[in-house]
Amino acid sequence: MDNCIFCQIVAGKSPSWKVMETEHAYAFLDINPVSEYHTLVIPKAHHRDVFDTPAETLGHVMDLVKQVTTLYQDKLGINNVQLINSNGREAQQDVFHIHFHIVPRRLGDGQNIRWHTYPEWRLKFDQLLEKIR
Amino acid sequence: MDNCIFCQIVAGKSPSWKVMETEHAYAFLDINPVSEYHTLVIPKAHHRDVFDTPAETLGHVMDLVKQVTTLYQDKLGINNVQLINSNGREAQQDVFHIHFHIVPRRLGDGQNIRWHTYPEWRLKFDQLLEKIR
Repeated sequence: MDNCIFCQIVAGKSPSWKVMETEHAYAFLDINPVSEYHTLVIPKAHHRDVFDTPAETLGHVMDLVKQVTTLYQDKLGINNVQLINSNGREAQQDVFHIHFHIVPRRLGDGQNIRWHTYPEWRLKFDQLLEKIR
Repeated sequence: MDNCIFCQIVAGKSPSWKVMETEHAYAFLDINPVSEYHTLVIPKAHHRDVFDTPAETLGHVMDLVKQVTTLYQDKLGINNVQLINSNGREAQQDVFHIHFHIVPRRLGDGQNIRWHTYPEWRLKFDQLLEKIR
């Protein structure tokens, strides 16, 4: 897509710090890093989000995620990473070309995901599952 | 693995609220939900984390992630989800059987991931990439 920044990066029309690429996917450093080697992995084909991406393409993205994490482990000794993929504006998606963040983490980096959990909701789980049967 | 709670769930030896399963993967409601339909997707085979999981198995997990998100979209109108996978104790992993969270999100749910970003680190990106060539 012409006006998609990630499509422009894949096409070499916008600059990026490339980490690796495969036939179907491209990995590059996030320009707003939350940690060293914070990386984005995207399919080369334009898809908006997980709902819009075929399972096969998600597999291609995971293949490259696996290669990048293996590289970071081998070359840098990185053994702690979070993978994060946001889909939809209400889920904090910013660029509407599906992307998986690889965020290397370490103790004391001050970057914790803190969710509020609702264990008491277990009581309505049967009811929730009823609605999707 | 005998002492792995997720292996016990897959084997039916511990209870779970199952959403769907395939030959190679299993999806069930997280008992500490951060939102309605907060779901975990795991491979049936025991693997510790992304470093320890073959790419093919990650693909199997993504296949089921795709099926579950499609189900939630079709049946519940859910169009906003985050996928999160934590690997390693320093990256907030709690259960050491690889799992992907599917977290449905909506505006005003109070559940934002807030990272501190370091845009100025762009200046050292060339140096970072040098180390992995």
